[in-house]
Amino acid sequence: MTTEAVRNAAEFGAAPTTSEGWVDRAREVATRLSADAVARDRANQVPTYEVNLLKESGLVTLLGPAEHGGAGQDWTTALRVVRAVAAGDGSIGQLLGYHYLWAWAARLVGTPEQIAAVEELYTENNFFFGGAVNPRDDDLVIEVEGDELVFTGRKSFSTGGRISDLTVLEGVIEGVTERSEGKHVFAIVPTQQEAIVFAGDWDNLGQRLTESGGVEINGVRVPWESAAGYVKQQDGTYEFVPRVYNTLNVPIIQLIFTNFYLGIAEGALATAATYTRDTTRAWPYAGDVKETASEEFYIQETYGDLTSKLWAAQALAERAAGLIEAINSHADEVTEQERGEAAVVIAAAKQVAIDVGLEVGTKVYDLTGARATSNKVGLDIAWRNIRTHSLHDPVAHKRAEVGRYALLGQIPAPTWYT
Amino acid sequence: MTTEAVRNAAEFGAAPTTSEGWVDRAREVATRLSADAVARDRANQVPTYEVNLLKESGLVTLLGPAEHGGAGQDWTTALRVVRAVAAGDGSIGQLLGYHYLWAWAARLVGTPEQIAAVEELYTENNFFFGGAVNPRDDDLVIEVEGDELVFTGRKSFSTGGRISDLTVLEGVIEGVTERSEGKHVFAIVPTQQEAIVFAGDWDNLGQRLTESGGVEINGVRVPWESAAGYVKQQDGTYEFVPRVYNTLNVPIIQLIFTNFYLGIAEGALATAATYTRDTTRAWPYAGDVKETASEEFYIQETYGDLTSKLWAAQALAERAAGLIEAINSHADEVTEQERGEAAVVIAAAKQVAIDVGLEVGTKVYDLTGARATSNKVGLDIAWRNIRTHSLHDPVAHKRAEVGRYALLGQIPAPTWYT
Amino acid sequence: MTTEAVRNAAEFGAAPTTSEGWVDRAREVATRLSADAVARDRANQVPTYEVNLLKESGLVTLLGPAEHGGAGQDWTTALRVVRAVAAGDGSIGQLLGYHYLWAWAARLVGTPEQIAAVEELYTENNFFFGGAVNPRDDDLVIEVEGDELVFTGRKSFSTGGRISDLTVLEGVIEGVTERSEGKHVFAIVPTQQEAIVFAGDWDNLGQRLTESGGVEINGVRVPWESAAGYVKQQDGTYEFVPRVYNTLNVPIIQLIFTNFYLGIAEGALATAATYTRDTTRAWPYAGDVKETASEEFYIQETYGDLTSKLWAAQALAERAAGLIEAINSHADEVTEQERGEAAVVIAAAKQVAIDVGLEVGTKVYDLTGARATSNKVGLDIAWRNIRTHSLHDPVAHKRAEVGRYALLGQIPAPTWYT
Amino acid sequence: MTTEAVRNAAEFGAAPTTSEGWVDRAREVATRLSADAVARDRANQVPTYEVNLLKESGLVTLLGPAEHGGAGQDWTTALRVVRAVAAGDGSIGQLLGYHYLWAWAARLVGTPEQIAAVEELYTENNFFFGGAVNPRDDDLVIEVEGDELVFTGRKSFSTGGRISDLTVLEGVIEGVTERSEGKHVFAIVPTQQEAIVFAGDWDNLGQRLTESGGVEINGVRVPWESAAGYVKQQDGTYEFVPRVYNTLNVPIIQLIFTNFYLGIAEGALATAATYTRDTTRAWPYAGDVKETASEEFYIQETYGDLTSKLWAAQALAERAAGLIEAINSHADEVTEQERGEAAVVIAAAKQVAIDVGLEVGTKVYDLTGARATSNKVGLDIAWRNIRTHSLHDPVAHKRAEVGRYALLGQIPAPTWYT
Repeated sequence: MTTEAVRNAAEFGAAPTTSEGWVDRAREVATRLSADAVARDRANQVPTYEVNLLKESGLVTLLGPAEHGGAGQDWTTALRVVRAVAAGDGSIGQLLGYHYLWAWAARLVGTPEQIAAVEELYTENNFFFGGAVNPRDDDLVIEVEGDELVFTGRKSFSTGGRISDLTVLEGVIEGVTERSEGKHVFAIVPTQQEAIVFAGDWDNLGQRLTESGGVEINGVRVPWESAAGYVKQQDGTYEFVPRVYNTLNVPIIQLIFTNFYLGIAEGALATAATYTRDTTRAWPYAGDVKETASEEFYIQETYGDLTSKLWAAQALAERAAGLIEAINSHADEVTEQERGEAAVVIAAAKQVAIDVGLEVGTKVYDLTGARATSNKVGLDIAWRNIRTHSLHDPVAHKRAEVGRYALLGQIPAPTWYT
Repeated sequence: MTTEAVRNAAEFGAAPTTSEGWVDRAREVATRLSADAVARDRANQVPTYEVNLLKESGLVTLLGPAEHGGAGQDWTTALRVVRAVAAGDGSIGQLLGYHYLWAWAARLVGTPEQIAAVEELYTENNFFFGGAVNPRDDDLVIEVEGDELVFTGRKSFSTGGRISDLTVLEGVIEGVTERSEGKHVFAIVPTQQEAIVFAGDWDNLGQRLTESGGVEINGVRVPWESAAGYVKQQDGTYEFVPRVYNTLNVPIIQLIFTNFYLGIAEGALATAATYTRDTTRAWPYAGDVKETASEEFYIQETYGDLTSKLWAAQALAERAAGLIEAINSHADEVTEQERGEAAVVIAAAKQVAIDVGLEVGTKVYDLTGARATSNKVGLDIAWRNIRTHSLHDPVAHKRAEVGRYALLGQIPAPTWYT
Repeated sequence: MTTEAVRNAAEFGAAPTTSEGWVDRAREVATRLSADAVARDRANQVPTYEVNLLKESGLVTLLGPAEHGGAGQDWTTALRVVRAVAAGDGSIGQLLGYHYLWAWAARLVGTPEQIAAVEELYTENNFFFGGAVNPRDDDLVIEVEGDELVFTGRKSFSTGGRISDLTVLEGVIEGVTERSEGKHVFAIVPTQQEAIVFAGDWDNLGQRLTESGGVEINGVRVPWESAAGYVKQQDGTYEFVPRVYNTLNVPIIQLIFTNFYLGIAEGALATAATYTRDTTRAWPYAGDVKETASEEFYIQETYGDLTSKLWAAQALAERAAGLIEAINSHADEVTEQERGEAAVVIAAAKQVAIDVGLEVGTKVYDLTGARATSNKVGLDIAWRNIRTHSLHDPVAHKRAEVGRYALLGQIPAPTWYT
Repeated sequence: MTTEAVRNAAEFGAAPTTSEGWVDRAREVATRLSADAVARDRANQVPTYEVNLLKESGLVTLLGPAEHGGAGQDWTTALRVVRAVAAGDGSIGQLLGYHYLWAWAARLVGTPEQIAAVEELYTENNFFFGGAVNPRDDDLVIEVEGDELVFTGRKSFSTGGRISDLTVLEGVIEGVTERSEGKHVFAIVPTQQEAIVFAGDWDNLGQRLTESGGVEINGVRVPWESAAGYVKQQDGTYEFVPRVYNTLNVPIIQLIFTNFYLGIAEGALATAATYTRDTTRAWPYAGDVKETASEEFYIQETYGDLTSKLWAAQALAERAAGLIEAINSHADEVTEQERGEAAVVIAAAKQVAIDVGLEVGTKVYDLTGARATSNKVGLDIAWRNIRTHSLHDPVAHKRAEVGRYALLGQIPAPTWYT
């Protein structure tokens, strides 16, 4: 199927009404994306078409309130949708997953009024989020000018950048040198403004269509009342009242990672299986020569081994989703212990997803054979995608985090990565 | 805690009323068993005390109907209970798991009257099941003498043997040479009878307290109407009407295996963690010497790695339990496809449970150190237990079974092992 | 260092005189190649410059007789040279390794006169070999026209193609349908002739600069007396007298593969180590934050683990080289058992080289971190190169081949792959 | 073969005269030991018979000078002999390996006169060494009484203990609290004396016949001139002049470990292969049922995989032996760099030997099947032996040691473990 054919595919049907329906919708999107995923990855162009497809499919407002036209689905569904989309195109799965977190950021940090405003804004307009929130860079600096905050600085990674409608900024008010939570400010702003300049410099091994390049923020102005979670005090200052739920962004994004790794691996295994069935030849120099490659014992055994591991990782990801769902159901009373245990289970799920993902990414070639290394086939995309993003933070430290829980009962202190 | 102390432990409290309560009860049993599991394993004696403990705890009638004093719990609970008990003593977890299957055998194969009779019998009397059903031996031979069947022969493995109250026999009516399903007969008989002679010859590497030795069946007499699933026809003959649900014994027992492997691994990791925290010393020749072994990065990382894999395997086992539960809810209409897909997921769960179980069994020593090899510590019991039972059928063929599903969409034909 | 700088590097010094000296010369070549290996891989151009570098360095005639200006070195040295060159550029290591085998082909199959002629020809002229010898394609067809043979047909893979001076052809005389050894004909011909047309269609995942595309052979004419190993009989016909040494091409080429896999892995680990030392940052969210990434325990442990495995694979490759050397020392009397045992050891060495090579190719990223995924760094080249070529024949079948020897004492029958 | 039969086996033939001959002799010893290795392991008796067998075979004086009746062989041979003996009985391989190091200790630390005296003593008398040299215990305390040293204290592990003729003591002169090399004293004393009391308390998972229990040293008296390496000064005091070669004990013993791990694994694989060929049945429920287990693809592939890894580890151990041999050839001029690099290669060899050894120890059961778990078979001995001794020092730290060399070029500082 050519790119053109995909782009001209029939429109989507009526919006689904169930969780299963939305996951099927995601699979439909994945099917369209997978048809030319390798070609689009090579071209490394701005994924405008792909994000439009997400918009047209209804997936962009999956978590949006029904009264504004959103699907009003829960995170369990959103995570499955990310996984399903990633099976067709890992980059687009990541974009959608990040979008869901940014869309949810108001819920995590904002005031009730801010939540209502943000959800209406993005749901009514089918807006897509990007974010300039890379914590290992120096923070953006914020100058306070009366009722306005002015953000200035640079981030090396800004996923979603050029294809986003809204951008999440994160900075620290000038003069506050330490990374104190109280002075840390998030705000959502329109992407299309002169003060935001994307470098378009993302040319990496994998996840190439995620628009994860750098960004310059040259004095973006935000009203104080839009600073997420800040409430005007009687003395006219703005204060932020922290709660545990604020820190759920890290577990949730790590679980999003997990799901798109799993999706990429599922997609790779499915693509390989088609190739094995249709194209791979049995080995003619064996003692016991088979009619077809699919009958080779090592091929059956390897598909089984990888599938079993993948299902186990998926099942753990589903368990982790249940923990997030439970926390969402009482966001105001979530305890540090609950948050910590969810973070540990998610860390565990991420580890096993990476392990099986990289193994699938490498072994799909043993399952398909020498001629599958032709660049026309492009099976390497899975290894490249998982290999690239799984370095987000060192998996060895994630393992140690799970280990401290298992051995010592310790939960991780909330940071940008735990 | 000495064996004596364990045996004199306070009686169990009132019977639990919830699934969670029963799993906690199982954990209580496990705690008692684990106190001298290594010593009992070495002694290799008939596990009379252990089975009594199961009876006193109420776990033996967990699946029994409430009207006869059973707990009326479902398989999800039963499987978790097996896992929890196995964490304290792998052999006893296996005995209990096999018991649950034999207790359920009437449901799988029997007529409504037989089901009612068997469930009343074992629940009212708190009877424990054993089984002389090893399919790779030649079958027991059954002679028909009027309204009675007479079973004669030998089985090399008969788990539960000497500590059982009831024994499941399986044989083929004389003159029927092929293993045709129609002439295959199961029957439940009292263990205590002269015609059943246990060899008491189980002296193997692991799962030593399972009474899995051989048995001679010297003319055990069973009324025709007790032959599971056989119905008297108008012409006076007995006929068996097969349905898919008959063949659920194999997926269920394989899922029982999976759960006691997981339980054994959980128990081993918990035991090791106590040893690491309390006894293991940090390595004094490192460049960066730690105060305690628990701070060593490799120890934290290894606990994390093993825990993550174990959780993933557990989550897949839970998913598989859900499939069995769904099938149980419509036992009369279960399709071959449904049965086959459940069998494949269970095969996958078993594989990953074995993989992580053997890895845990070996690596607990890296986590505890040289002095933990003293036979007073006995950490090897986990590796021995999992290594022994995981050979029940070749895991390579289980992987291939999963692979044929993933690659070709094939489900396994029902056999004694698939 | 830019490509330009590399190309203008000072000329090589005087020709080495020892085996160690030639390996050092190979390292010098590797250093020049590694400077822009990633850029050249991307460009995917005909490796004319690279082959010239091999020629200028003297490595092309390493095995050539001293009386014609060759270095007169042995295969142990040649294999180390392949490994060393591959550490700088896997493609060029492969080209050189294949060249060595083709240059040696006369020794394996030819008559004494043919050996003398071929060795003089290529050594005096510093000629580079390519080969149109892909056994899984249909053979080239040979028509006999008096004292000439005419080769016609197509091969999908022809490593060395456009940059070779001489091409090895392999075909079967028309009318001989079976792959009988007696009618199988090798011949060495000039590459530059109208009847040889390279497709230039090699665009694969890795080993991109090996010119491994397809070739059309449109009636290449070869005198009967150049058909390797054929001797004119009294009746005017040509006959081939087989000996075991003829079949050494497969073990030798498999050992060449092994050595360039090992070289690629060594190069990748060395490149990663430089990056880790110079660029990677310690993880700031650990409980026990280090000053430098090099102090992180998991980084040290992973370098150690990969290095140990790599050294073990190298040591086995060296042992295998010793077996080939021993066989070369009595080429006329080599037994099938000797040949078979060497083939098995080489199969074992290849397997472990692939295992560690793929693991190194994946884990170099864990050792260098997220920013190393920038395409400017290009660390993926090792995984791509090893992944691509290691599919030459299924490693599962190689393992089984070693297994049949270990379990049953069987040696592989000579085929194109064993 | 019964134990009795083994013990009454024909005497050994004439002493071998070549390295290969001695390795064959070791294989002969191994064959006798393997016949009842499992039974002797269970019995856990003092290995008097086994050490006598080593004495009768001539292996005890393998390294002893020819002029005193020793075989005068080198370490390469000694290490192969350890490996070969361990293939028959891991414990006895360890005993012999430790003996070789203790017998060599005079060469490492002693004066020329001490070397001559010790080598004559043990070679003429065919004496076997044990050692009370566990560095992680508190040192023995030495009181100086005129020209005598008096050793007093306790060691928890004293390999060889009750079956040794000579014991190596290690202590620190009273009042010297730090572990300063200058005051560290080794001495060789007769084992049979009242002041040496063995606890006979070695009851561990594996290597059960090594007599590695504790020992009390109750005032063993040693003349000052027997303190290894100490030379009487003009002022009547004794001084020790350190040189790099003194510290070779650690690399050599670690390479001895490596070799008996490898030997144990080789023996296990050979034992398993016999069982697979003779006893294991093909799996009757496969789609493609084989005649024999040996034809099962997974069995062939697994034998191949394990054999390949084992050969690679052996090859690296041989390379390491070459480094020790080179050092021995210039013991007086060995540099720290040379010593350090040998130590690193040995650490690498040990790691891969442990990895493959534990994998073999576990997978022999997959290769032989469920009935091989009978304690009559006893295949677990390999896993138990390797698992036990491989905890001597944490392999994670060995990996890090190799890693620091690969990444940073660091060599380990000499300690008791590096």
